[in-house]
Amino acid sequence: MRTDIEIAQEAEMLPVKDVAASYGIGEDELELYGKYKAKLTDGLWERIKDRPDGRLVLVTAINPTPAGEGKTTTTVGLGQAFGKMGKKAIIALREPSLGPCFGIKGGAAGGGYAQVVPMEDLNLHFTGDFHAITSANNLLAALLDNHIHQGNALGIDTRQILWKRCLDMNDRALRNIVVGLGSKAEGFVREDHFVITVASEIMAILCLANDMEDLKVRLGRIIVAYNYAGEPVTASQLNAVGAMAALLKDALKPNLIQTLEHTGAIVHGGPFANIAHGCNSVRATKTALKLADIVVTEAGFGADLGAEKFLDIKCRKAGLKPDAIVLVATVRALKYNGGVPKDQLKEENLEALKKGIVNLEKHIENMMKYGVPVIVTLNSFLTDTEAEHRFVQSFCEERGCEFALSQVWEKGGEGGIALAEKVLYTLENKESNFAPIYPDEMGLEDKIAAVAREIYGADGVSYAPAALKAIRKFQDMGFGNLPVCMAKTQYSLSDDQNRLGRPEGFEITVRDAYVSAGAGFVVILTGAIMTMPGLPKKPAADNIDVNEEGVITGLF
Amino acid sequence: MRTDIEIAQEAEMLPVKDVAASYGIGEDELELYGKYKAKLTDGLWERIKDRPDGRLVLVTAINPTPAGEGKTTTTVGLGQAFGKMGKKAIIALREPSLGPCFGIKGGAAGGGYAQVVPMEDLNLHFTGDFHAITSANNLLAALLDNHIHQGNALGIDTRQILWKRCLDMNDRALRNIVVGLGSKAEGFVREDHFVITVASEIMAILCLANDMEDLKVRLGRIIVAYNYAGEPVTASQLNAVGAMAALLKDALKPNLIQTLEHTGAIVHGGPFANIAHGCNSVRATKTALKLADIVVTEAGFGADLGAEKFLDIKCRKAGLKPDAIVLVATVRALKYNGGVPKDQLKEENLEALKKGIVNLEKHIENMMKYGVPVIVTLNSFLTDTEAEHRFVQSFCEERGCEFALSQVWEKGGEGGIALAEKVLYTLENKESNFAPIYPDEMGLEDKIAAVAREIYGADGVSYAPAALKAIRKFQDMGFGNLPVCMAKTQYSLSDDQNRLGRPEGFEITVRDAYVSAGAGFVVILTGAIMTMPGLPKKPAADNIDVNEEGVITGLF
Repeated sequence: MRTDIEIAQEAEMLPVKDVAASYGIGEDELELYGKYKAKLTDGLWERIKDRPDGRLVLVTAINPTPAGEGKTTTTVGLGQAFGKMGKKAIIALREPSLGPCFGIKGGAAGGGYAQVVPMEDLNLHFTGDFHAITSANNLLAALLDNHIHQGNALGIDTRQILWKRCLDMNDRALRNIVVGLGSKAEGFVREDHFVITVASEIMAILCLANDMEDLKVRLGRIIVAYNYAGEPVTASQLNAVGAMAALLKDALKPNLIQTLEHTGAIVHGGPFANIAHGCNSVRATKTALKLADIVVTEAGFGADLGAEKFLDIKCRKAGLKPDAIVLVATVRALKYNGGVPKDQLKEENLEALKKGIVNLEKHIENMMKYGVPVIVTLNSFLTDTEAEHRFVQSFCEERGCEFALSQVWEKGGEGGIALAEKVLYTLENKESNFAPIYPDEMGLEDKIAAVAREIYGADGVSYAPAALKAIRKFQDMGFGNLPVCMAKTQYSLSDDQNRLGRPEGFEITVRDAYVSAGAGFVVILTGAIMTMPGLPKKPAADNIDVNEEGVITGLF
Repeated sequence: MRTDIEIAQEAEMLPVKDVAASYGIGEDELELYGKYKAKLTDGLWERIKDRPDGRLVLVTAINPTPAGEGKTTTTVGLGQAFGKMGKKAIIALREPSLGPCFGIKGGAAGGGYAQVVPMEDLNLHFTGDFHAITSANNLLAALLDNHIHQGNALGIDTRQILWKRCLDMNDRALRNIVVGLGSKAEGFVREDHFVITVASEIMAILCLANDMEDLKVRLGRIIVAYNYAGEPVTASQLNAVGAMAALLKDALKPNLIQTLEHTGAIVHGGPFANIAHGCNSVRATKTALKLADIVVTEAGFGADLGAEKFLDIKCRKAGLKPDAIVLVATVRALKYNGGVPKDQLKEENLEALKKGIVNLEKHIENMMKYGVPVIVTLNSFLTDTEAEHRFVQSFCEERGCEFALSQVWEKGGEGGIALAEKVLYTLENKESNFAPIYPDEMGLEDKIAAVAREIYGADGVSYAPAALKAIRKFQDMGFGNLPVCMAKTQYSLSDDQNRLGRPEGFEITVRDAYVSAGAGFVVILTGAIMTMPGLPKKPAADNIDVNEEGVITGLF
């Protein structure tokens, strides 16, 4: 069997200018990065911005399991299928982070015959967007420590510094550090932390900014620390905005690449889906909607985290209106939710499937609460049985969802036509009455309760005392009108990662909270969220190599 | 008066493919990064590598002073002048570091009407080479700490870790840090340090590597630490080579941009000129020599540091043979060397000039010791007087050097024709009998003594006990055949930055030493060398901005 990277490397890519031309984009509206990657210029946006929007299809999934669901693969394959059917469709995706490539997770370009290419470039430096974010993040940190070193005119309390440095690397040794050691010339000693670049607030800001002006406003609002009087100190007060914006000038422009079947893919930005909103940039989605009749996009993790944030944060703030939601599941993952151990997922087990499908059921109900029609797809595996497929199909149809099998991993676009037809049917026949799950003007605690009850199925919310104090402080500071960004385990609808299926009779415990004032949301932490991953015992880096001809092996 | 960035932004650039075409480079031999930047492919190198070489002209300078010398400006202007004269010339330069752009120094693209463009791109992310080096450097660091965390099979002594993390940022708070704080899952606590990316050994390696194979051999040789038995532990033992090489795949390819007058400029790599060898990549220089009849290149700092390393490290190791050396000085800098304070340099002062010109004299003698003909140029200022110019001219001519005034800052290539003619005359009429100042097989201590006596003019060398012990250890470990890379203040020929002119009666004190086994030299430290700069009281970042149209201001 060929590996993903082998399939990707054997692909005959079109020059990206030809892919662009198929969407009516001129060569002078591209900034080429080699032959197969390009940034879309501001000029393009200016030309197309007043066009009517295409239809927006969100791909999300049940809670992730070790069995794998294949959400990106489905997104890419669905885009390819529309292409095969002669529809003018385009894909909008997040950029992968460099860190996980060398750790456990591997890359994020789809899989099998449903991939975006060039796969190696995408997974390594791509067009440098994440490096630009890393630089801007660390410039702000350097300016902050320099301000303190040079006299601290703003009275920054070094015990209350919020801004962290970042690297796009899995590096546990940098989670908790002490900086400024040495002599007087080396600055003040203080505790500090590195996060991975995708967890930087600048990543979230870049992905929510409409344009350069909006980007600068958001950068300026970042709260880097509190001063000795307890007031917030912002990036704007450190005069950091212009220089950060200069570093981010090109990163703000969406990137165009292609699928294995030459469907366009706008791949741009990639914030975490727990402490941030977990989807590609607003700029990418809006551009995609002007270029194609159907836009297929994706949100991180399961629907409780990724889709909830896509809908309650991104769509709300950017004025986007999804027309359909594709919910991805696998028979294996549903059986895993029904209690089957990982090594027995190959065997038919209708009892376990029946028991585990409640996870899918809850996500279907959740998505319907937003007023958006739902299509369920099973990313099919060779070991699935017909009976299992039939059971899931009836289950979905009884709940008013369209259903289709997907075989895009194995067959590319061809394997996604059944799904694409159901999506088309939905777009043509079912109306989307999208509304977020809570209104802007609701208080922060009520917003948290709304997500916990409506989406997670919790009985209520309990707060650690410091968390409640923080949230009430944010309310007083004027941040009450912001959406909440819930940081919760992705493995369960509850905040206990071991409770699979559809947990009931539980409360969500809020342990801490902070404001991402630049991004424009209040982060609610329901557990310890890892913002700097570590490398495993045998890192993926061990197997990565490049030969004399520049051919990379071992990326996955 | 227009600023450098204004002049650069008003320039009408040619598409880089047209610049490439003027050197016979096909479009398919370029990887475009936007319209005005490109990487030169391996395919190009394969096609041209057997051609005869052009002539190699090195631009170097007297010891730098606060008055400024304009070495890069002269290099660019000389290239432009050759272009004006219809000669097929190309420039090879270092890439600037992002850190200093936001600090004091500003960018490094030349100045006035002798600049390479696009200036903002070059000074910011350019084609991402430095980001790739940062990533590779920090991947090695993460793999090292992960190895220790996962059981430390190699027995790495955490008190003897040599490998440092890096960022392309001026950030003094990261000079001395403690990492690995927190719980067991956060790794082992140890002292660590960040250097600026240009000080990473990977920068030096990239700039000395001939090709991917050589790069990988060099990366594998990096000594990251010693084990408990006192033996070196290498990057190869950490299985880090393939993944680092994959990260550096594109960074290894030279970048092509242009001057304000469309002369080609290959800008690639940028190691420090104290703890590393301070010049653009071997790959860039070799490519340039195949593309043009005359290659103008530059070395960092003054001739005692930059040119010495260019000649004794880069040329020796890469088999390059410089045909002429241009020594840049200014009347102001020579008067400063003669004791005139910074605020009185505008006034004619032949006495001070006579006193300070001994600095130039020593550099002329030094360059001649390498057997290469020397041309001296004065980068002229409005405040210079005719008498001052005449004095310097006679001084040089008496010593067998050609001499020319240069007005490239003000007039671009036109202002460099007088200099270009002298260089041409030299190339046509004077023979270069280049030989390094010491042979490979000389012991390390003798090599140090050779540079100290022959180049610095020292009476001898004294060693701190630990330094001598280290150097003898390196000799025993088999590194005795490597060249020495002298890290010394750039402001004086001696190791005391306050001794201007031509110091005499001094010894060089070696304080420490370490091996850059991957780069292939032994670094000899004669003082505290700053490998992570700090930001000043008012950082340049304060004035940098970008507007809605993406136009950057405040870079210099």
